[in-house]
Amino acid sequence: MPNQLFDSLISGDRLALAKAITLIESQNPAHQKQADELVQKALKFGKASLRIGITGVPGVGKSTFIDSFGSWLVTEKQRKVCVLAIDPSSQKNHGSILGDKTRMEELSMMENVFIRPSPTSGNLGGIARKTRETILLCEAAGYDITLVETVGVGQSEYVADSVVDCLMLLLLPNAGDELQGIKRGIMELADLVILNKADITEKPILNQAISDVTNAIHFLPNKFQGWNPAVLKNALGNKDDASKIWEQIEEFISFQKSKGFFEEKRIAQKTEWLNEAIKEKLETSFFNDSQIKEAIKNSMKVWINGEQSLDEIATQLIAGWRNK
Amino acid sequence: MPNQLFDSLISGDRLALAKAITLIESQNPAHQKQADELVQKALKFGKASLRIGITGVPGVGKSTFIDSFGSWLVTEKQRKVCVLAIDPSSQKNHGSILGDKTRMEELSMMENVFIRPSPTSGNLGGIARKTRETILLCEAAGYDITLVETVGVGQSEYVADSVVDCLMLLLLPNAGDELQGIKRGIMELADLVILNKADITEKPILNQAISDVTNAIHFLPNKFQGWNPAVLKNALGNKDDASKIWEQIEEFISFQKSKGFFEEKRIAQKTEWLNEAIKEKLETSFFNDSQIKEAIKNSMKVWINGEQSLDEIATQLIAGWRNK
Repeated sequence: MPNQLFDSLISGDRLALAKAITLIESQNPAHQKQADELVQKALKFGKASLRIGITGVPGVGKSTFIDSFGSWLVTEKQRKVCVLAIDPSSQKNHGSILGDKTRMEELSMMENVFIRPSPTSGNLGGIARKTRETILLCEAAGYDITLVETVGVGQSEYVADSVVDCLMLLLLPNAGDELQGIKRGIMELADLVILNKADITEKPILNQAISDVTNAIHFLPNKFQGWNPAVLKNALGNKDDASKIWEQIEEFISFQKSKGFFEEKRIAQKTEWLNEAIKEKLETSFFNDSQIKEAIKNSMKVWINGEQSLDEIATQLIAGWRNK
Repeated sequence: MPNQLFDSLISGDRLALAKAITLIESQNPAHQKQADELVQKALKFGKASLRIGITGVPGVGKSTFIDSFGSWLVTEKQRKVCVLAIDPSSQKNHGSILGDKTRMEELSMMENVFIRPSPTSGNLGGIARKTRETILLCEAAGYDITLVETVGVGQSEYVADSVVDCLMLLLLPNAGDELQGIKRGIMELADLVILNKADITEKPILNQAISDVTNAIHFLPNKFQGWNPAVLKNALGNKDDASKIWEQIEEFISFQKSKGFFEEKRIAQKTEWLNEAIKEKLETSFFNDSQIKEAIKNSMKVWINGEQSLDEIATQLIAGWRNK
């Protein structure tokens, strides 16, 4: 099955791609086995895309930005674009981002575009791993630009940064002080900052914001030595803005490549990915062992009564499992 | 050392308590060993507190609320109060909450109060575990109310809920629509909702907000069957508001106890805690093994060249480790 699915996928069949990603997101062991084969095939196939993260607080206009910038990439730069999402908060409030494709009206109608809403389950490490595998499949399917949307509110932008080559932060030119608390940590992560909604912002306010953010960045530690994130504006549908943003992304990537940072980051991401896969397997093998399940149940009493410490219990269980 | 430290801690020595918590937060194996002993002692010692979580977006006034409500608990209810923080985003922007004790001016001057800023490192499971252990030590030290402050922006409020008995959500009466996206998931978690800054809100706006939030809650699934979270107001320093909030907390806890939910939740939390401790030990034992480290390095090439899949590599490494 994976063979056939993979062949359809690389031939450009979007339904096959969607099916393959569903296997990656599945918790079913049989699906996971197939997903594992698909990932191996895709890795060997060796196609790559430029991976761009887009982060910012709710309301900053990420979806409309992606709609407009993505469409520009397709029409003006003849790229094939896929759009993915990272949303660790969606465990309970399902599908809060990309849940509604209609927010990307223009993009979702295009031929050379693939949009995939956020998967729901998993811890941060697991989300990063699944996103990487999804990116890999999209690349095998011929998409050469991957846009990863994420809500920047504390954790997800770190996950996003760990799967992309370039992280763009969207800000509002007239956001109050209350949001600044969130922004600082995120600003340190940004490779490029965009003041969004420039079309509905008065010019003096926009210019002030650009100058404020530019100043603020000077006080932050550099993420990459030698790179000062540019601060650009974006008015919805403005081709000139899109073009300048694209130029900056290209400049950043050239800078990264010339310094060796690009390759370094990709290797670090792959290392994290491999480690995460091993860790997941280790946990599942251990915690799904029926004797271990029973032993943990019995340990609860022993622990709560103070007969054994957490460390003693853990040490004993692990030793028992290894010697089985 | 742990023996002596524990004796000082239960005698009410705040410096000893601070030292003990530092051991819990430490990554040093020797410290972790001591922390493990302290936790076992504290568990056996068996003192307990009421654990209350306080969440809400940045700017909602969590610190001032804790300052005022905590002081009220100390002076009017003769309680010993400890204040902890959960902030998974602080990995990079260190100490964004509780970093500045001066934001809790009144509380931080009091005798029967212990305030501990947010620890920085770890994944969410690790943060939950360390917070539980810190709570346990504070309880052994005689604190009978634990307030856990957290930034509610997607993940940390789930962690907070997994360590407390009652989660309070603070809202602003006049927050715009942009914040609503964040609020929905959090509102489903709240056991009690408080409209903060009532002292600086016009009465009609406040009343409208109370009625809006009350209505909104009716459309959400119940977290606990039979409990509809009350929506209360809080004006800074208003004793009547504090008293009503306290009444609601007590009512919620009685409800929880009468239904058996209280004990159920505590047992679930303990189970998660034990599992987390075992998982951490399993990972450390595995990934710190020098042969495993070497083998993972060698696996990178094999994997990237497509010779073996992630699952094959993981299976092989784990089998090798178990048979050592």
